[in-house]
Amino acid sequence: MAVYTDVSDEALAEFLAGYDIGRLVAFRGIAEGVENTNFSLRTTAGDFILTLYERRVDPADLPWFLGLMRHLAEGGINCPLPVAGRDGEALRMLCGRHAAITTFLPGVWPRRISQAHCRPLGEALARLHLAGAAYAPRRANALGPQAWPPLLEKCRARADEVQDGLSDELAEASGTIVAHWPAGLPCGHIHADLFPDNVFFLDGRLSGLIDFYFACTDFLAYDVAICLNAWCFEPDGAFNATRARALLAGYGAVRPLTQDECAALPLLAQGSALRFLLTRLYDWLNTPSGALVTPKNPLDYLRRLRFHLGTRDFHAYGL
Amino acid sequence: MAVYTDVSDEALAEFLAGYDIGRLVAFRGIAEGVENTNFSLRTTAGDFILTLYERRVDPADLPWFLGLMRHLAEGGINCPLPVAGRDGEALRMLCGRHAAITTFLPGVWPRRISQAHCRPLGEALARLHLAGAAYAPRRANALGPQAWPPLLEKCRARADEVQDGLSDELAEASGTIVAHWPAGLPCGHIHADLFPDNVFFLDGRLSGLIDFYFACTDFLAYDVAICLNAWCFEPDGAFNATRARALLAGYGAVRPLTQDECAALPLLAQGSALRFLLTRLYDWLNTPSGALVTPKNPLDYLRRLRFHLGTRDFHAYGL
Repeated sequence: MAVYTDVSDEALAEFLAGYDIGRLVAFRGIAEGVENTNFSLRTTAGDFILTLYERRVDPADLPWFLGLMRHLAEGGINCPLPVAGRDGEALRMLCGRHAAITTFLPGVWPRRISQAHCRPLGEALARLHLAGAAYAPRRANALGPQAWPPLLEKCRARADEVQDGLSDELAEASGTIVAHWPAGLPCGHIHADLFPDNVFFLDGRLSGLIDFYFACTDFLAYDVAICLNAWCFEPDGAFNATRARALLAGYGAVRPLTQDECAALPLLAQGSALRFLLTRLYDWLNTPSGALVTPKNPLDYLRRLRFHLGTRDFHAYGL
Repeated sequence: MAVYTDVSDEALAEFLAGYDIGRLVAFRGIAEGVENTNFSLRTTAGDFILTLYERRVDPADLPWFLGLMRHLAEGGINCPLPVAGRDGEALRMLCGRHAAITTFLPGVWPRRISQAHCRPLGEALARLHLAGAAYAPRRANALGPQAWPPLLEKCRARADEVQDGLSDELAEASGTIVAHWPAGLPCGHIHADLFPDNVFFLDGRLSGLIDFYFACTDFLAYDVAICLNAWCFEPDGAFNATRARALLAGYGAVRPLTQDECAALPLLAQGSALRFLLTRLYDWLNTPSGALVTPKNPLDYLRRLRFHLGTRDFHAYGL
């Protein structure tokens, strides 16, 4: 939750002059969002989000992200639609950052996850996967299995500061998971970060998906595995199989998982737990004290990883 | 910039059921605001701000603050109007915090102050002072001159960590200022924290004043002195007398300063510089690393204090 870059009123006025979206009415920094700076922007034409792209987002990827969002929005997915300026460009510069305006989505992200959220989530994820199929450009997953061993290497020397024995435990898990990583599963564009704070609900219905800045082209079922990790564990680390069943039922009603995808699910869930564990561990060890964003505890994902390593097969997920 | 307390969707729904303001449409944490947690709240009835009161705000003062805001808003001041629930109460509890919903004000706070902001600011400040006159309850200024020596005492042992000699310099300045503090100046309700991020402008006009949680009953001209400090210095610490003249001209056009107030202005400016210097120094020395809010550098106010100590009389402020 942070505003990394503030925008002066003059810079904002000049920036908005490049758009045909009416006159400025209000402009407030949004506390949510860890990677980028987001402002709520109101003009006489309506409500928008202004995003300034900060660290971790490679500017070379921005056209791909914005193109995917446009493609999905035009395909009926409730996701932010990039707004083009008068020159037809959605991606622009502001205060030395790449920046874009997108449409505002109504809704509230669920602070406390309930079973009722999980079926609509699964349905929306499957619709996202289907709608993305016709978007031709691809983007490799920069945080896929090839990234885990080097990321672990950067953390190994200090991992035991977080928990005794963590370094060895992760090395063993990473070795096994990467060695057995599946091949040949159905591929497509995945969100890759569909945590509760990226999913809005309104009046009990899913109203929007946001934050596509980890999206990439990878196994579709890997996105399902990420959601199992993000939505189906209790705060104390217990796996909630009822939520998992609802999520998978919702997904399967729109896009049935293949047999191979079902069989790979435990491994994909292990891999996605490891991915979030490793990036959180890296941030935990490398965030300077006094940073605007408090790093998340990596051990939440160690519990998930251990759960997935202990499952016998995909039936553990309610399939 | 921080959300100290997050609000679950269930808690929010239950809270909103106590109001007659339509159905929830959107809910986002606002990055601005150092003292409290603020959310932008949209319902089918319009836009609101939901504030959860955190540290530093004494719950016993909240009825006074909300009463003042209501009084001012009904008196034509563009400030947030507290919204009462179905039971007639504006002050309620949410997530273990005192909480209130207020109306949303359009506008953007000026990141870069220009002379053009200062006359409307002065006018609005004077109108605020006049409109407050009929609000009978009083609230003593908890950060007035009686508070400075004990605050300094808490910082003295470590003040020189911030700048060599700071402890002695502040002790001398505080002694002089408090000993000569004026008496008998016109009193009323003052905002006491009217920094640029609490003043909204829209289309070149002042559109709103927010954040009344330091408001109190004190010398009206002390509020003017606070604004001189908050609005009339360059980032490098230089005093911008042209802005001060515009501010004072705007104020005087609505409520002319008395001769006594003019004569006291240098001392009031010294006192208000000292007040912000001391609270920032205290926060600087006492904010744990990793806190959500980065403390502001107290030395910005040492430069202001030195400037005010060096002025011969009120003509230095463009009067």
